[in-house]
Amino acid sequence: MTQLSEKTAENLKKVRAINPLIHNITNFVVMNFTANVLLAAGASPVMAHAEDEVEEMVGFAGALVLNIGTLTNIWVESMIKAGHKCSELGKPVVLDPVGSGATMLRTSTTKRLIEETSISIIRGNSSEILSLGDNTSKTRGVDSIHSVDDAADAAISLASELGTTLSITGPIDLVTDGKRLIRTENGHPLMPYVTGTGCAATAIIGAFAAVDPDPVTATATALAYYGLAGELAGKLSSGPGSFTVNLLDALHNLTPEDVKRGVRIRQYS
Amino acid sequence: MTQLSEKTAENLKKVRAINPLIHNITNFVVMNFTANVLLAAGASPVMAHAEDEVEEMVGFAGALVLNIGTLTNIWVESMIKAGHKCSELGKPVVLDPVGSGATMLRTSTTKRLIEETSISIIRGNSSEILSLGDNTSKTRGVDSIHSVDDAADAAISLASELGTTLSITGPIDLVTDGKRLIRTENGHPLMPYVTGTGCAATAIIGAFAAVDPDPVTATATALAYYGLAGELAGKLSSGPGSFTVNLLDALHNLTPEDVKRGVRIRQYS
Amino acid sequence: MTQLSEKTAENLKKVRAINPLIHNITNFVVMNFTANVLLAAGASPVMAHAEDEVEEMVGFAGALVLNIGTLTNIWVESMIKAGHKCSELGKPVVLDPVGSGATMLRTSTTKRLIEETSISIIRGNSSEILSLGDNTSKTRGVDSIHSVDDAADAAISLASELGTTLSITGPIDLVTDGKRLIRTENGHPLMPYVTGTGCAATAIIGAFAAVDPDPVTATATALAYYGLAGELAGKLSSGPGSFTVNLLDALHNLTPEDVKRGVRIRQYS
Repeated sequence: MTQLSEKTAENLKKVRAINPLIHNITNFVVMNFTANVLLAAGASPVMAHAEDEVEEMVGFAGALVLNIGTLTNIWVESMIKAGHKCSELGKPVVLDPVGSGATMLRTSTTKRLIEETSISIIRGNSSEILSLGDNTSKTRGVDSIHSVDDAADAAISLASELGTTLSITGPIDLVTDGKRLIRTENGHPLMPYVTGTGCAATAIIGAFAAVDPDPVTATATALAYYGLAGELAGKLSSGPGSFTVNLLDALHNLTPEDVKRGVRIRQYS
Repeated sequence: MTQLSEKTAENLKKVRAINPLIHNITNFVVMNFTANVLLAAGASPVMAHAEDEVEEMVGFAGALVLNIGTLTNIWVESMIKAGHKCSELGKPVVLDPVGSGATMLRTSTTKRLIEETSISIIRGNSSEILSLGDNTSKTRGVDSIHSVDDAADAAISLASELGTTLSITGPIDLVTDGKRLIRTENGHPLMPYVTGTGCAATAIIGAFAAVDPDPVTATATALAYYGLAGELAGKLSSGPGSFTVNLLDALHNLTPEDVKRGVRIRQYS
Repeated sequence: MTQLSEKTAENLKKVRAINPLIHNITNFVVMNFTANVLLAAGASPVMAHAEDEVEEMVGFAGALVLNIGTLTNIWVESMIKAGHKCSELGKPVVLDPVGSGATMLRTSTTKRLIEETSISIIRGNSSEILSLGDNTSKTRGVDSIHSVDDAADAAISLASELGTTLSITGPIDLVTDGKRLIRTENGHPLMPYVTGTGCAATAIIGAFAAVDPDPVTATATALAYYGLAGELAGKLSSGPGSFTVNLLDALHNLTPEDVKRGVRIRQYS
């Protein structure tokens, strides 16, 4: 535990020192909040989706974050173009498959993004992540998931199958590349009452991935830091409105020292 | 009055128990705030506008909310497609005709949505609602409205003409289906200083319509609850920034019991 | 100094009395915040980008604000159409060239907007503004700017060349039409940690330009008022989340008298 909490502090320190540009092609609902979360953490957000400029913009970025929350086909082309360029440059691509499993458009777009670009990390809730599996494979569906341990088993086999790092977030967050498994346990019950807290977590993963070449530790430490900020914010809040305000303040004010002491992050395998 | 305030409490309790998915095809300005208002109230928002998925998404929803605040033609096609499907499934469609009466595009789009889909409830300010009338009919225009009673008379005759439930909101909110008329009087003068407070009211009407089959009581009780939250928030706020925060907190924290005691809602005919 | 601080108070008073409609064609990230900033200041925002209605909407507006933050080509056509109409009607057009100089699409779009419409005022950070210069001309590039005085010299010669009013904002804001130079010094270090604080400054300039026919004083007094609100908000805030809330409250609560006493605004030439 000590090693990973130190790694969390170290990654946060790097984000603030390097101030990586995080290129987001994300949904309309969360654009503002995502940008503010990235700024509060110490990264530098840019939102750009025009086919004409995404490749050029990716050139300046430390990571690319793709989010399909308010999908249309024209945006998917930009995502793929940006994703190709980003992989070509050896930079991490992080995917948030919002609503994958709910509609055919979202499920098929997610699969297309995974096939046609080289995604480093995917973060979602359990139904979104488990929708990525081939239904005919042994990957068990969402309905068969009855505990965090079940979810972890499913995520591990799916990560191996897809050859990527997966993260299922919820009261407990799981991160795996099919071999290693890390759990983080910070957070607060008000988080699901604010739209975009998941999407913003994905963006923070992008910021950490821009400074940490290991996708598993980048993802897990990002979630631990973000969850700790949520935990502290929750203690000061009287509802989801004040929670949002306090979350941004906490992301900004948490020091690497606070983070090292506060995060609950542990490697299980 | 007792009966309607009890109905308000009952509808809020149902929203929190059922957690209806509210499908919004709405404007860019208010997407985030609308989603947060729905979450704070206890409903579950989804924003989806791609023609390829709106029909499928409507299948999961308890209500559809259409809002023309940042209109382009391509979105109108999705609204109509989603509206058709929603009516076909017997689910309520709520319309917010933002800026109808201001530009020809907005006025004609609103009329087209009313003609081509089966709208259950329309909420707007008095100019927006009264712009829906046929100029050659006896429905009096906005300029002739000098009091809440004038507005009520105009709304009643227009609701009959259109065969729908209409709501004109302002310091006093009016709800009518052409026969019944309900007034709610909660609210706060800071509300118009926050963008999207009207649009979010329409979304809350969607949430209540998802649990109450009577469009008149669904609309009026939604507005009473929302207005009460605004009233409480206003007392704690020192400007429109803190008002927004306190409004979300109040929507989340108000209990059915608080609501029953606090709402000022009365049927006039 | 006295004269300009009185002018700031006077312009604020006019915005609140006239309540000008400010037509924004702006980016997705900042639409909500921009609308709330305009409302808090006392203006009336509208966001409309459909080619079919921008000309009609401009007819009701006191000023047009163009912002290329999340650019696509279809929006540029609407910007040009709205810009033409606005100039034809003798109303001010304010441009925020977000990211000009970063990608070719943004740089060329900015130049096209300047050539094809009649822009009254352009506000950006120093790289954005200095990217507007012809690289072969004597206008020095961003890299040669080592001080506020260097930036002022560059802005003065560029404003003459372009025949418009330019504003470079940062810890110290500069406003020039190539002849006059005004500096304002209010603000707070938390401002860059909130997305859209620059874009919202541009919108406030639009509101002041709607009531003050002199683009130089309109811009400088808008920035002084906005900076003062930021300064007061910063003193009450514990991070970027609370800063946003307090900024909106301060914009709403500052009286012309407060403004007259608090702004640090001075003409240098």
